Amino acid sequence: MENCRNIKLLIAYDGTDFCGWQRQGERTVQGVIEKALGTMHGQPVGLTGSGRTDAGVHAVGQVANFCTAIHSIPAERFAPALNSMLPHDVRILASSEASSGFHSRFDAAMRTYRYHFIPIRLMLPHESRYNVHLHRYPKLDTLNSYCRMVLGEQDCTMFAGSGDMSKSFNRFISNAVFFLEGGRLIFEISANAFLRKMVRSVAGTFLHYEEAGMTPGQFREILALKDRALAGPTLPPQGLFLWKIKFSRD
Amino acid sequence: MENCRNIKLLIAYDGTDFCGWQRQGERTVQGVIEKALGTMHGQPVGLTGSGRTDAGVHAVGQVANFCTAIHSIPAERFAPALNSMLPHDVRILASSEASSGFHSRFDAAMRTYRYHFIPIRLMLPHESRYNVHLHRYPKLDTLNSYCRMVLGEQDCTMFAGSGDMSKSFNRFISNAVFFLEGGRLIFEISANAFLRKMVRSVAGTFLHYEEAGMTPGQFREILALKDRALAGPTLPPQGLFLWKIKFSRD
Repeated sequence: MENCRNIKLLIAYDGTDFCGWQRQGERTVQGVIEKALGTMHGQPVGLTGSGRTDAGVHAVGQVANFCTAIHSIPAERFAPALNSMLPHDVRILASSEASSGFHSRFDAAMRTYRYHFIPIRLMLPHESRYNVHLHRYPKLDTLNSYCRMVLGEQDCTMFAGSGDMSKSFNRFISNAVFFLEGGRLIFEISANAFLRKMVRSVAGTFLHYEEAGMTPGQFREILALKDRALAGPTLPPQGLFLWKIKFSRD
Repeated sequence: MENCRNIKLLIAYDGTDFCGWQRQGERTVQGVIEKALGTMHGQPVGLTGSGRTDAGVHAVGQVANFCTAIHSIPAERFAPALNSMLPHDVRILASSEASSGFHSRFDAAMRTYRYHFIPIRLMLPHESRYNVHLHRYPKLDTLNSYCRMVLGEQDCTMFAGSGDMSKSFNRFISNAVFFLEGGRLIFEISANAFLRKMVRSVAGTFLHYEEAGMTPGQFREILALKDRALAGPTLPPQGLFLWKIKFSRD
């Protein structure tokens, strides 16, 4: 598009009542923001997101961009303008001018997710949309030794969904760690990109084998088989947040 | 009732989708728990709560009691039995045997509420059910000097709703304080009992006059008038939690 401004949005949402970032014919985050953009522009406006979060997954650091021919509004004013039209479970935290070639998906160099767990004690109702319950305290040392085994370039076939049509299952995992914060257990993982439901499968697999008492050495052998049938359960989406996106430029 | 056990419940709920603890003909916390008790007993069972929270107000420390002729279940097993029948926005945190004369309302000597505020920064969607937004940082010193003025036996007429039919507006406020915790502003207040919507009116009045720049001396004169028309806005229920109940016995 000639004479077009590229606007970058920082977005947070409560994923509970969404069918994810992107899916056809249902309530999606992309859908409600595109609807507000359409109202603002008087014509359809496409929005490109950095991460296609699954149904029920939350975000505090999603990034998306769109092209606009509106020149009368300073970039930072798009955020409050859109928020006035958006439902309360999506908020634009910031809007800014991006370079014309910036693409939220292709230029995203690292995606970070956080998974929130509440071990042992009964979950309080106001926590249950944003945490996953664990019936025991896992051994952090064991989990973190598992984490170190998946760092770097990895064939992630084991953590892919059965219908995953991705061309490659290789991903570069730059960080993975379990830690305690305010009585909660948090799993943080960063990679250049993730397969669908991969974070939920990785966390479920680690917790499954830790509970089964697998030593780091045994777990390394299981990982080496790259066998989907050996993955642990895919955990529910409630506790998962798309936390941060890092870009190669902008 | 002859041969009846008195069971005490500690209850938490997300008030968002409830029309309060008690109201006729709508979805109430008391209603859903009584329904589960009725299923368990094969007949209606009445439940008495300590605090009648308003629509939208949450609880992490509500207490209630009921009489049962079921003797086969240890007291602590009522909690998991009820939880298996209750919707996810109500949880029984504990159940225990109470003395036969114990009454959750009459024996409650002190009720504590907490109000959660997020000042200035945009509220994230996953916080918006459980916090009230403030567009500025209030002066804590000023708010806490207002707090000290309402301690002790008080005529709370100023903080009563217009249709309040209470026989007496006197309440004993044993504690009131504003403090910061993890980036949030918290207002905690304890009293022997509260009028309907009183906590929301007290907090709204304090914040209103602090923003208007009233000195403690000026605020004392306003308080002395006991005039409902001088109360600040009744704040929304989202950020409010029934936090704890203290009993004179049990």
